[in-house]
Amino acid sequence: MSPIEALVVLHPVSARAAAGRPVSECLHPLPAEAPALRVEDRGVSRGDGVFESLTAYDADPVDLPAHLQRLARSADRLELPEISGAVVEAGVRRALETAGAGETTVRIVVTRGPEGASEPTAWVTAAPAADLSDQRRDGVRVVLLDRGMRSDAGREAPWLLTGVKTLSYAIHAAAAREARRRGADDAVFVSTDGFVLEATTASVLVRRGRRMITPPQEHGILRGTTVTRAAAVLSELGMPLESRALPAAELSDCDALWLLSSGRRAVPVIELDGRPVPLDREVTAALERGLGRPQD
Amino acid sequence: MSPIEALVVLHPVSARAAAGRPVSECLHPLPAEAPALRVEDRGVSRGDGVFESLTAYDADPVDLPAHLQRLARSADRLELPEISGAVVEAGVRRALETAGAGETTVRIVVTRGPEGASEPTAWVTAAPAADLSDQRRDGVRVVLLDRGMRSDAGREAPWLLTGVKTLSYAIHAAAAREARRRGADDAVFVSTDGFVLEATTASVLVRRGRRMITPPQEHGILRGTTVTRAAAVLSELGMPLESRALPAAELSDCDALWLLSSGRRAVPVIELDGRPVPLDREVTAALERGLGRPQD
Repeated sequence: MSPIEALVVLHPVSARAAAGRPVSECLHPLPAEAPALRVEDRGVSRGDGVFESLTAYDADPVDLPAHLQRLARSADRLELPEISGAVVEAGVRRALETAGAGETTVRIVVTRGPEGASEPTAWVTAAPAADLSDQRRDGVRVVLLDRGMRSDAGREAPWLLTGVKTLSYAIHAAAAREARRRGADDAVFVSTDGFVLEATTASVLVRRGRRMITPPQEHGILRGTTVTRAAAVLSELGMPLESRALPAAELSDCDALWLLSSGRRAVPVIELDGRPVPLDREVTAALERGLGRPQD
Repeated sequence: MSPIEALVVLHPVSARAAAGRPVSECLHPLPAEAPALRVEDRGVSRGDGVFESLTAYDADPVDLPAHLQRLARSADRLELPEISGAVVEAGVRRALETAGAGETTVRIVVTRGPEGASEPTAWVTAAPAADLSDQRRDGVRVVLLDRGMRSDAGREAPWLLTGVKTLSYAIHAAAAREARRRGADDAVFVSTDGFVLEATTASVLVRRGRRMITPPQEHGILRGTTVTRAAAVLSELGMPLESRALPAAELSDCDALWLLSSGRRAVPVIELDGRPVPLDREVTAALERGLGRPQD
């Protein structure tokens, strides 16, 4: 990720505290390099907060309503106060005004705030998007790594926070390091009962013949905003997306495999645990057209 | 936790960068309430860092070498650069000089720093210790909660970071909220194969007859510094501490149960999932004498 170009602190950000105030009073732009966070904030002392990452083209955010909805769901799962969507959206637009033109990565973070605080800490950053054109063209290598949990672990245990985009991503970062140690670019998590879950920061999409498959949310994975957008593209190609349990064995003889996320869009996987995976240039190109910069 | 009284940023903190510099040059005291952290630090964006909490009495830290050792082990597990123990120790002492007399909670945090940085971000805070005398005397209520993983999940999967004190504690915080929702004070995690692991921020100690038992590190739990100190106390009482696999069923008819941590010392548990647990006042008092403020 490039250094951030814009930082806007949102305060207050709870729907209750922001009610009745002009939204502009809740936006506090700061110099991008300024230390803005107190060290005792529970977002850092416990990874106790939620986030969203999205892409913008020339200051126009992609699928912002879907990201705001998911942020609200994540905050609800963490029992954070209800967040003012209007304040967050205005913060995103303010940050994008400051950022330059071109492709921008926007990050929205909401934490539980310092110990004892009832009002969350929140901010939006904007940074030039990483150039992933090589990955999109040539593909990436992935390894399968055990997630240590059954696919249904979170069903009766909501405190495990499966499917919630929290700041507690140390395991995801460690799995990505393990993947690099094995000569790969990223890891795809597999449940202890043998189902494909998700990559460390991306959703998984598989082609088997004419069937396009993505693992189901019921398996405790994140609801991918890019997956939802990809489903529309695939539908137009006559390859409707199925969301269903995906045994890891179905990856080893798949016809194509992609990692999907707001930042990556659709990156083809060309190697799985050291074995080649076919690169489907046609569907990859269709996904890039459908998910990438809107054409005039 | 009370508001912090002292904040000392440690920079540089890696053994490599600090080598040859006077330690005092690596200590940067800041006003306690100052925002000291950049929002894109990976400690907050991914909970990608490690920490230690310890207690000091009148500026004298308890068991600092053990905490520094565990911090070094956690940093190693996260593949952070080797940390200068001399800088961290000096930072702890500097923070304690600023903090008032009495019982103080010290927190040491080391993160991976901002994206792209090779030098970790680190700081020490000191705050007046919470008054837990009621809990130590009257005990607390706990519930058992599923950790969603087998007791051996981390053995072949080091990226799951079991037994590492990372900043990614959102699940621990969510489990503590679930406990309060159930009318309890804290939660004790149980593995999917039925073994007692640890509380959300404490180790577990059980008495069955004359036997004192704590779950083993092999089950992916944190190596408790207070457990080690308690073992010495129990040894003197003629009740040597066994570290062994502890089936959850052994809690339901135990003769006493405690939560152990630097801040709590030994807090007796008086209720487990709504059923009473005997309070062993004699051993509780012995643990408090042995773990509490050193007597003159």
